[in-house]
Amino acid sequence: MPKVAIYAAATEPALTSPATYSPKYQVPAGPITKDDLGRATWTLLHTLAAQYPDTPTRRQQKDVKALVDLLTRIYPCSDCAKHFRELVRKKPPQVASGEELQQWMCMAHNDVNQSIGKPAFNCKMANARWGTLDCGSELACSMDGGH
Amino acid sequence: MPKVAIYAAATEPALTSPATYSPKYQVPAGPITKDDLGRATWTLLHTLAAQYPDTPTRRQQKDVKALVDLLTRIYPCSDCAKHFRELVRKKPPQVASGEELQQWMCMAHNDVNQSIGKPAFNCKMANARWGTLDCGSELACSMDGGH
Repeated sequence: MPKVAIYAAATEPALTSPATYSPKYQVPAGPITKDDLGRATWTLLHTLAAQYPDTPTRRQQKDVKALVDLLTRIYPCSDCAKHFRELVRKKPPQVASGEELQQWMCMAHNDVNQSIGKPAFNCKMANARWGTLDCGSELACSMDGGH
Repeated sequence: MPKVAIYAAATEPALTSPATYSPKYQVPAGPITKDDLGRATWTLLHTLAAQYPDTPTRRQQKDVKALVDLLTRIYPCSDCAKHFRELVRKKPPQVASGEELQQWMCMAHNDVNQSIGKPAFNCKMANARWGTLDCGSELACSMDGGH
């Protein structure tokens, strides 16, 4: 399959006049691999955990559990989904506080990493790695504002 | 905030002995930005749409709708979640087939891109961009296998 430009102008067919696009968080130009998909999904999940409130509402707790549950079914790599399903069955998500969720997410990520021979992350560093969402001059980066 | 290594060995504090990690799909070493988060989430969503069956089960249709609905509430950037909520209210996700979902996802992505001044994607190219998930020699990359 030929590599295609990510963002081509809607009015011009990408095959004849591809536009270039160079984000900091580069999406691969070729087919997405399982690793790419995993990294993208963990980025969403860790950032969500980092923004999760210290004292979440019942709705927020229910929503995060539901998201994890959904991913065990519809994550678009069936082997990965199956592994995640087994993990979640043994160690259900801890959603009572931001710290709990962050540590659960780190444990889950390490469990997956271990199974595919990747090094583990030091969970004491979870906040330093994922704790800050840089929104520039805006104050829009939180979960609470969305409720 | 100092930049920290992404994957440090669990037994060695990352601040003193960081391990290096260079994935194809690079997670930024510094704070995650809204753009990074957006790109990661679209990667998950487009890949999910690309793997979504031509004739999805009721459960799969319900699950994808639930995922979109959850993201309108708990996506960890409240401004983005609000915009997405308005979009979903006006144009609910189309989940009756893979093609429908892929086109809806492309429309939604373009709506977001337009609002933040980014070029639109040619939706005729959605399959070429997201249609292949490269699983190497494994046959594990599907959604159906997870059900």
